Amino acid sequence: MRIIGVDPGLNRTGYAVIDDVGGRWVALEGGVCQPDSSEPLEKRVLAIYRDVREVLEEYKPAAMALEELHSRYEFPKTAILMGHARAAVCLAAAEFGIPVVGYAPSRVKNAVTGSGGASKEQVLAAVVAQLGLAKAPKPFDVADAFALAICHAMVASSPIARVK
Amino acid sequence: MRIIGVDPGLNRTGYAVIDDVGGRWVALEGGVCQPDSSEPLEKRVLAIYRDVREVLEEYKPAAMALEELHSRYEFPKTAILMGHARAAVCLAAAEFGIPVVGYAPSRVKNAVTGSGGASKEQVLAAVVAQLGLAKAPKPFDVADAFALAICHAMVASSPIARVK
Repeated sequence: MRIIGVDPGLNRTGYAVIDDVGGRWVALEGGVCQPDSSEPLEKRVLAIYRDVREVLEEYKPAAMALEELHSRYEFPKTAILMGHARAAVCLAAAEFGIPVVGYAPSRVKNAVTGSGGASKEQVLAAVVAQLGLAKAPKPFDVADAFALAICHAMVASSPIARVK
Repeated sequence: MRIIGVDPGLNRTGYAVIDDVGGRWVALEGGVCQPDSSEPLEKRVLAIYRDVREVLEEYKPAAMALEELHSRYEFPKTAILMGHARAAVCLAAAEFGIPVVGYAPSRVKNAVTGSGGASKEQVLAAVVAQLGLAKAPKPFDVADAFALAICHAMVASSPIARVK
């Protein structure tokens, strides 16, 4: 099964595609979309949407693991802006009929490192090890996207899969 | 100048199109997009996006007045979900190259009724009067969308126009 993980953000949206080949995970692609921050909001949302569409078109994943926006924002405005980036990603998936599964950051960290409170560096190291990558993906958003994809691969392949 | 006003919401997104003909406003269209609430989030976002695209395609407005999401949400989660609906609308506008101008609800109320704290009923009555509508638009989301369009028409035609 092919899975795309996406870590949405208005400044940087990380994405990563993996294949789950009988329990072995193969990294196919990882990258980041960085809209021009001097552009108005609607153009930044459009840039994210178009980039994600291109990746979906090329790799045709069977599922998308998308970071749930956490509730740790102190300002609703930040949450709203993050929601805009996430929606652009959702929309691209919906257009291709790709089911979207949301995972909380702590759940993803727990899946790949064994600890829901793991640091970004720990998540990165776990992703590199589990995918057998020759070098560490950059920036962290890409590693986070790989972690999301791995998390979904674990959940989807588990005999007692429960998707929160 | 043709203006579309949009009041975004995941459950109901109101939209309204007016023409500003030398300071006289003519209502062309008003409606609401109500995605099936039993559908997953990404399909609801897609439904809003497609509906708004259709309206933009038909009416080709020169500008979009879009409600700013206020900060009165107690739960960031609500703000995030609202952000998803707003982003779908933004995205449709960006695809048509239509500039999006955000207005806070209190500013819109003030523009059409003279009071930033006006009730929904007062906004509705003001919209009906100012556009010379034969009957009141329903639901309130449509009246709110008309009010947004009127607010932008006032700002855009003002010699000392300042867009917040």
